[in-house]
Amino acid sequence: MDHTLLLWRRSFAEFLGTALLVTTVVGSGIAAQQLSPDDVGLQLLENSLATTFGLAVLILVFQPVSGASFNPVVTLVDRALGGGARSGDMLAYIAAQFAGGIVGAVLANVMFAVPTELSTKDRVSMGTLVAEVVATAGLVLVIFALVRTQRAAIVGPAVGAYIGAAYWFTSSTSVANPAVNLGRMFSDTFAGISPATQLPFIGAQLLGGLVAYALVRLFFPPRPATVTG
Amino acid sequence: MDHTLLLWRRSFAEFLGTALLVTTVVGSGIAAQQLSPDDVGLQLLENSLATTFGLAVLILVFQPVSGASFNPVVTLVDRALGGGARSGDMLAYIAAQFAGGIVGAVLANVMFAVPTELSTKDRVSMGTLVAEVVATAGLVLVIFALVRTQRAAIVGPAVGAYIGAAYWFTSSTSVANPAVNLGRMFSDTFAGISPATQLPFIGAQLLGGLVAYALVRLFFPPRPATVTG
Amino acid sequence: MDHTLLLWRRSFAEFLGTALLVTTVVGSGIAAQQLSPDDVGLQLLENSLATTFGLAVLILVFQPVSGASFNPVVTLVDRALGGGARSGDMLAYIAAQFAGGIVGAVLANVMFAVPTELSTKDRVSMGTLVAEVVATAGLVLVIFALVRTQRAAIVGPAVGAYIGAAYWFTSSTSVANPAVNLGRMFSDTFAGISPATQLPFIGAQLLGGLVAYALVRLFFPPRPATVTG
Amino acid sequence: MDHTLLLWRRSFAEFLGTALLVTTVVGSGIAAQQLSPDDVGLQLLENSLATTFGLAVLILVFQPVSGASFNPVVTLVDRALGGGARSGDMLAYIAAQFAGGIVGAVLANVMFAVPTELSTKDRVSMGTLVAEVVATAGLVLVIFALVRTQRAAIVGPAVGAYIGAAYWFTSSTSVANPAVNLGRMFSDTFAGISPATQLPFIGAQLLGGLVAYALVRLFFPPRPATVTG
Repeated sequence: MDHTLLLWRRSFAEFLGTALLVTTVVGSGIAAQQLSPDDVGLQLLENSLATTFGLAVLILVFQPVSGASFNPVVTLVDRALGGGARSGDMLAYIAAQFAGGIVGAVLANVMFAVPTELSTKDRVSMGTLVAEVVATAGLVLVIFALVRTQRAAIVGPAVGAYIGAAYWFTSSTSVANPAVNLGRMFSDTFAGISPATQLPFIGAQLLGGLVAYALVRLFFPPRPATVTG
Repeated sequence: MDHTLLLWRRSFAEFLGTALLVTTVVGSGIAAQQLSPDDVGLQLLENSLATTFGLAVLILVFQPVSGASFNPVVTLVDRALGGGARSGDMLAYIAAQFAGGIVGAVLANVMFAVPTELSTKDRVSMGTLVAEVVATAGLVLVIFALVRTQRAAIVGPAVGAYIGAAYWFTSSTSVANPAVNLGRMFSDTFAGISPATQLPFIGAQLLGGLVAYALVRLFFPPRPATVTG
Repeated sequence: MDHTLLLWRRSFAEFLGTALLVTTVVGSGIAAQQLSPDDVGLQLLENSLATTFGLAVLILVFQPVSGASFNPVVTLVDRALGGGARSGDMLAYIAAQFAGGIVGAVLANVMFAVPTELSTKDRVSMGTLVAEVVATAGLVLVIFALVRTQRAAIVGPAVGAYIGAAYWFTSSTSVANPAVNLGRMFSDTFAGISPATQLPFIGAQLLGGLVAYALVRLFFPPRPATVTG
Repeated sequence: MDHTLLLWRRSFAEFLGTALLVTTVVGSGIAAQQLSPDDVGLQLLENSLATTFGLAVLILVFQPVSGASFNPVVTLVDRALGGGARSGDMLAYIAAQFAGGIVGAVLANVMFAVPTELSTKDRVSMGTLVAEVVATAGLVLVIFALVRTQRAAIVGPAVGAYIGAAYWFTSSTSVANPAVNLGRMFSDTFAGISPATQLPFIGAQLLGGLVAYALVRLFFPPRPATVTG
């Protein structure tokens, strides 16, 4: 198959995967908010478990097609670490991810008959910015730790579990993904993220990617160090 | 073993698997409703986790016997994609699935000493119809994405996790299965689905199957495309 | 190593595994009851998730030592299906399982500073007896379906998940194990089972084992039937 | 790579892994306490699920680098069982674990804008001391049962699941780790452990390690005993 066709298919996979990821996050957030109105923690538990399960499966499905990043930071770090994508392809994937994020939020709104409005939920504080750095660094480290040790087959369940934990151990509920961050701007519900939160959070996520890049190079150099020193 | 005996055994496996799936969905719904009367979200959390675990195991158990579809849409798409069943066999499996769905609901009613009555829970709206298309397309895509990439061994856990997420990210709580849809008509409890909801939902599920068929052909053609373009 | 030493080691593994299983069930039940006093469903959710996780791990740990039945019905069906244990060994395992069940309940009581008293929780009804037949038949079917198809490595997680579902989809919360049934008599807390419930439930569990024996022979004969008829 | 560099890298992995483990435990505890103020059981459910998922992933990530003990008792038992570390290396790992525990608690405090204060939560009683012996013995047994039977690849998920169960079936919520125990002293929140609780709990954990050492030697001798006696 020629390169252009493959590029379109992979970009469409990144689009669809990111869209369904945001549908999962936003949709389960709406359901949780509607069904468990009395306890925000229970809402987050429902939202985080749905995301854990959904994200794991989405990665398993699209991994053989496009690698299943669904995340511009992951795509950038992959490239910096020497992953194979050409620069033009990389830009196509990232564009597909951002577009998917927005479409996914709209799809969730449609299913739950909620209007598509900009979120009013401001989330920026010193604590949440630190949290986004930590959350994104951890996410990217998990992915490349497994990929670089011949365990790509379990990236799906591992990333799902990581996010299921990070929703709770960070104060920002671990967005860790600029495309998801942007998509969540288009639903004024449980999982919404306001326009004013966009740039600070995306900046923190890029910084987290940089931290992860350094950690991956330290712990998982291309030639695995022998464990028996 | 001759073909007739094998056909009976496989059909019985589809019957029993679908029955126990509906017993799991309806039974855990009744338990959740009785034990957590104050929070519908908590009920759905209990119901969805029980379904996630139960469905994963049912597929693992019956996969070597009948393939463990438990779902007419999956059986139809399998056939359309070139799966091996003869037309007559396919009809036997689908009949077994529908019969299993009904018996499974009755078994749940018996265990919980609840009368077997038609559900009064109408679920049709524009949002829930879209949701059933999305839920079924996703379910069928997950199954064939794994089967076509030599990962049939993890279809059970992956489908369980998918449904555990889709209960939450769709507004219809993701029935995604005409046989389960019909079975759930026979219990007027948490998981019940009214007679008036049957045809619209089953229509949406068939449409979802069609969408998945196209996506599977696009992303997972019989000869896997090389990832390195 | 000679047979007597091996028999002692295996019996001790069955004793310890069954004890820790009952400690998990009873202990998590006490914790749930104390910490979530306002919602019985939430208590069962906490209890069922702890049991799912704990049982999966206990089987993984003791499987290479004794097979990790922890359950007289499983040991009996294994023998009926032609599993290797001698009659005398089988009796030693079953005795170890019952003793473990009791000790496990006492250990939970000690950790939570709860007196060891006979449970006053009667659970017998037509619905719960049917439920114990179904629950036990399902449990035994799961185990031998996997063992007979060269998937013994995942019996632990699969059985954990099965029980996590069956706590919810049966009206008896799925005891499915005479040794656990007996052990739970010795704690008058959330997971307790009264003396009067013992014989009826154990009878139903044995009947469930018989049903499973027939199903295993039907679906998983020693020589696996070819799937392509 | 020379020994000193490897030692530094491994020690840093033990530091970072233990830090992120304590961040997970303390951070998810703070989130649970803030979001679900009305039900301590629900808080523990949220806290235990986050820990289950997070711990599983942390072990998967750091296992190829340092073995991923994150726990002085595990490091000591590994050495006693003949694991490869030199005495000096072992001390470096343990120092890294304790330092990581403290830093991890501070990081959680920073993300949630909570002051770093000594915990006031006393946890010592006869029941909780027994519980810490049981919890630690079980944890160490799980790890070496898997390692000694060529299943090190699943230590991560198994340990995560074990802790997820042990949070509930022990009355101490299963600390089972002196480095985590110390770290949790530096947050006066849900997961805090008071200074007065430090020595008794760490003593019980060491005793649990001793029990596990004996059990591992009994059940999993270096040369695996044949299962067919």
